[in-house]
Amino acid sequence: MPKHFQIKSLNRVAIAGVGLLGGSLGLALRAAGYGGRLVGIGRRLSSLRRAVRCGAVDEVTRDPAQGVAQAQLVVVCAPISQFEGLLRAMAPALDRDAIITDVASVKQEVMQLAARTLPRGTRFIGSHPMAGSEKSGVDYARADLFQRATCILTPPARADRATVAWVDSFWKLVGCRTVTLSAARHDRLLARVSHLPHAVASALVALGVRDQAMDLAGPGFADTTRIASGDAPMWTDIFRSNRAATLASIDELIAELARFRKLLERDDEAGLHAWLERSKQVRDRWVAQRYRKQVLPP
Amino acid sequence: MPKHFQIKSLNRVAIAGVGLLGGSLGLALRAAGYGGRLVGIGRRLSSLRRAVRCGAVDEVTRDPAQGVAQAQLVVVCAPISQFEGLLRAMAPALDRDAIITDVASVKQEVMQLAARTLPRGTRFIGSHPMAGSEKSGVDYARADLFQRATCILTPPARADRATVAWVDSFWKLVGCRTVTLSAARHDRLLARVSHLPHAVASALVALGVRDQAMDLAGPGFADTTRIASGDAPMWTDIFRSNRAATLASIDELIAELARFRKLLERDDEAGLHAWLERSKQVRDRWVAQRYRKQVLPP
Repeated sequence: MPKHFQIKSLNRVAIAGVGLLGGSLGLALRAAGYGGRLVGIGRRLSSLRRAVRCGAVDEVTRDPAQGVAQAQLVVVCAPISQFEGLLRAMAPALDRDAIITDVASVKQEVMQLAARTLPRGTRFIGSHPMAGSEKSGVDYARADLFQRATCILTPPARADRATVAWVDSFWKLVGCRTVTLSAARHDRLLARVSHLPHAVASALVALGVRDQAMDLAGPGFADTTRIASGDAPMWTDIFRSNRAATLASIDELIAELARFRKLLERDDEAGLHAWLERSKQVRDRWVAQRYRKQVLPP
Repeated sequence: MPKHFQIKSLNRVAIAGVGLLGGSLGLALRAAGYGGRLVGIGRRLSSLRRAVRCGAVDEVTRDPAQGVAQAQLVVVCAPISQFEGLLRAMAPALDRDAIITDVASVKQEVMQLAARTLPRGTRFIGSHPMAGSEKSGVDYARADLFQRATCILTPPARADRATVAWVDSFWKLVGCRTVTLSAARHDRLLARVSHLPHAVASALVALGVRDQAMDLAGPGFADTTRIASGDAPMWTDIFRSNRAATLASIDELIAELARFRKLLERDDEAGLHAWLERSKQVRDRWVAQRYRKQVLPP
């Protein structure tokens, strides 16, 4: 495997878990000009067959060892709860030079699992491409799912630079912008901007159902709670894998709501206005910046 | 004024406050075939001029009394903080048979203000068309803003039925579905599905800004916090006007988050899954129902 990533140097890529993300990755690799084999590893034959049918992979297997044999790149796209079993099953069959990465939303647990279950020296670089939707399953896979998504790389402390650069350019190939962070920092920040909002959206729906209040809810409520329609088993995994940081974020949010509550209780007009205005401005700037980034070429 | 609403029976409608909602109402009335005069009442000449320019109103005035004179219908679309001044100023000039309504998001305070400031016998029916966006100002006004929006009517206890029916058909004319509720119930339910979500969105942005976590935020965060980009002065008004119900909703949410927090702390897989799954199903059903309603003719 050459030091610098070149799509032509690949002739066998294994995708373990061909749902929305795994399926989209297969389609994105094809769209980017990858001409080698794509092997899908999965548990249910029905979804593996659908993955072949939609062109996300060329061949499929339920045996992780068979699936990763001779692959130069293995991307684990399965739910975190299946990681340990998958990594253990594929470990003996991994090519010595293969590069392994993943797409999980939580990174400390994944990095620890990889260190514990893969042979010493295996080149595992954690990745979290922040793409997806509240839909799940290969039927929703799209070749452009990763376009303009941010992918966070969390290499282990002693990863060699060339391998990190290789994985970095792999994600750029499918359309991502990349950032490198420690797994701990990744999990702390993602708890705040992704896992906490999900818990909050679900909590708002749990309140909305009382007294049929949701009959009166409008598009604001629909947007605020959209992510609550995400796959419950997957999110159960995510929360359990990022427990400490999520608990800390819930406490941060409760403290922030208590601050707002106090302003409201005191009927502090200036304080309420300042609190709302600050968030409005922060968010407006953030949206403007995202938008600016999106109109420029990735 | 005939008992049943007929657009041809109107020849003068006054809109007090020509921002996004007031402007859109003018455009919607025109689109529905209203051929009489539209009078815009406002405070700033610049936005009144823009309202005329975009066709939302025909003539404008900064004098509420002059604006409502001879109008058969007056719709107050100003921020709640301006209601008292506006109602007092227009009270002496209101036509004896005029019907007055409004578009405010909070109803108890508005109903009390109307009862206190308008002459006894004035036909004031509270309305809350749940339309709008995080944009504000007449420049964003659209003739179809009210299409398929729910409009909640909150008539005073002793309102005569014909007047309520008249206001009901007025809102249907501009595209709304209508519901009638007591002002107290309206405020309690809206606190839960509208005012609380706004406070939560702002709180999430306040957390997101720490450690630049928002640099990693994706489309889920963007949707969950969209309403935090709403107009801060308007929302300050809304929260202050619906203080008790908002405080109660914040407490409900904190309790619900504490419930989730406990499940997570205990690493209760089944409990977490059930909690997430229930909200997912409730929301999915709600979306399906909204969608079904939207594809049928209004």
